[in-house]
Amino acid sequence: MSLKAPHPSQSTTNRQVQIVKRAVGVPTEDVFEVVEAPFPECPEGGLLVEVLFAAVDTGMRGWLTAEKNYMTVSDGETMRANGVGRVIESKCPEWKIGDHLFGWLGWQQYAAIMPDKVLWEISLEDAPAEVWLSLLGMNGLTAWLGLHLFGMPVAGDTLVVTTAAGGVGSVVGQLGRLAGLHTVGLTGSPEKVSLAETEFGYAKAIDYRAEADLGSAVAAACPDGIDIFFDSTGGGMSDAIFDRLNVGARIIQCGTASVANWQPVPTGPRRERSVLVKRLSWQGFLVFDHLARATTIHQELVTAFRAGKLTVRHDILEGLDKAPGAIAKLYRGDNTGRLLIRP
Amino acid sequence: MSLKAPHPSQSTTNRQVQIVKRAVGVPTEDVFEVVEAPFPECPEGGLLVEVLFAAVDTGMRGWLTAEKNYMTVSDGETMRANGVGRVIESKCPEWKIGDHLFGWLGWQQYAAIMPDKVLWEISLEDAPAEVWLSLLGMNGLTAWLGLHLFGMPVAGDTLVVTTAAGGVGSVVGQLGRLAGLHTVGLTGSPEKVSLAETEFGYAKAIDYRAEADLGSAVAAACPDGIDIFFDSTGGGMSDAIFDRLNVGARIIQCGTASVANWQPVPTGPRRERSVLVKRLSWQGFLVFDHLARATTIHQELVTAFRAGKLTVRHDILEGLDKAPGAIAKLYRGDNTGRLLIRP
Repeated sequence: MSLKAPHPSQSTTNRQVQIVKRAVGVPTEDVFEVVEAPFPECPEGGLLVEVLFAAVDTGMRGWLTAEKNYMTVSDGETMRANGVGRVIESKCPEWKIGDHLFGWLGWQQYAAIMPDKVLWEISLEDAPAEVWLSLLGMNGLTAWLGLHLFGMPVAGDTLVVTTAAGGVGSVVGQLGRLAGLHTVGLTGSPEKVSLAETEFGYAKAIDYRAEADLGSAVAAACPDGIDIFFDSTGGGMSDAIFDRLNVGARIIQCGTASVANWQPVPTGPRRERSVLVKRLSWQGFLVFDHLARATTIHQELVTAFRAGKLTVRHDILEGLDKAPGAIAKLYRGDNTGRLLIRP
Repeated sequence: MSLKAPHPSQSTTNRQVQIVKRAVGVPTEDVFEVVEAPFPECPEGGLLVEVLFAAVDTGMRGWLTAEKNYMTVSDGETMRANGVGRVIESKCPEWKIGDHLFGWLGWQQYAAIMPDKVLWEISLEDAPAEVWLSLLGMNGLTAWLGLHLFGMPVAGDTLVVTTAAGGVGSVVGQLGRLAGLHTVGLTGSPEKVSLAETEFGYAKAIDYRAEADLGSAVAAACPDGIDIFFDSTGGGMSDAIFDRLNVGARIIQCGTASVANWQPVPTGPRRERSVLVKRLSWQGFLVFDHLARATTIHQELVTAFRAGKLTVRHDILEGLDKAPGAIAKLYRGDNTGRLLIRP
């Protein structure tokens, strides 16, 4: 059974971004090659999806280096990425032409996939396609899980977030404010400070590049100390915050974006004593371990989004030619809001 | 109301160990002075206790340095310490002569205290007095809480414990074995290795001083990786274990004994990446935050002790003259089992 629709593009090729070698540190353009592959066949039992948007994530660095990681993408593969797309051909009973979905679509124009690459169906009536890759994508789920499952927020707590204007941090600030927290964010430019304070829920944002003494700036913004530290950077930026944690504080390690290379492991201040004396809880997590909760979290986020209580910004790269430099752009902090590729 | 008993000693003085200055790193003998104070009066509303045994704890280092800590003892004070004792005079309704108790009695022969310094009554029928300062004292409670509350053991998990022959570690090994874990301990001499394996519940003990490559020795002893890391040392010893943790491992930071000085904070390998990628849970705790659970834990430990399922060793210093060097002895690892002072 093949339900074939006229393909919306008259394309006879499929533009893809392939991996040609391992990255050392943050992946640079030469790690990738943009190729024109033949237009794919819909596989038996699978489906053919037109990719509307594809994600650019800090986590991709870890997939592309030679180091051990929770997930790896091999040389020769099309770059793995979450995407949202529209079914244009189906040879499986679960999906029909015109359905919209979220899944592992990759950096390419068309994804010929089996149904197990799909994570969930999406409704463009609930939110526009790109929002399903930001607020309602892994970023939003990561923000919700980190804050609520591991941060265990209590109204009145002080929350500090690194990468406050980024894809995850911009959601954490808003969720923190909805939870009644004192929200403080770090970000890397005056424009982002302004956005963080006006749109992303932060009572106070700090431009870490402009502060000669980041620790004092954090201390001034957090007169009652810090109860929840949502960290996506690690490194020196996290050191400035670590010293100001309250007894019983929760640290959520969501990323390590400020440390460009973990091979060899860099050194920093030993944490054993702080963890002990302050009875800290330092927890790492990956959103992929917790996807069984996605439906429930989606309901909460969609409701808040439609009620105008959550907002989101997108930074959209037009065309796959911009994809090879996208991860480096993200690590430089050159994006404002969720960085996506429109293939 | 004063219930006066003939004092068991004919002492007219009270030997005490007083603090004369701040320690730098591990407290040395010159931090203390042994004095002959006058025999104390029983305070109104309080009680007079003959100290049978007093504790020597690694945590005392933190109380005595100038650094910020969860608890501080000031110059001029009698050294604070847990002890077990017998009531020899009472001016309060809660206690009568001959009662035995556990509390903050200090390094001295007689403690004139208010009832709020007593933590709980003890029964010498359940266990000898010294056991109430080891297996049933803060060490045993620490071992139980760290393993069960934060370690969340599942039968079959691999548990690694630093200071395996110490006051806490010697209990953790036994509790781990009772919980069905593969128990691996690190300790500092062939004699302690033997004790750890024959008495303290360890399937395998490693002499960290004899290993040129501690990491490989740990890896060989833990063929399935490490699920629970009960760490009382920190520093380089913990580094060797950190790299071998499984995804989802729990780290319980119970002490930092191998790092002699935390001012300034020493450097070591950054942990952010491991915490994230392995989804680690790194938790600090202090037994003092959890004493509401003591009664329940005591019931479990007394039952196991009386059934012969838990054993304990004591290393008893005779007389307060040995107290000033006791903390340094503990940090050198010169003790075997729980180090106590009999005043």
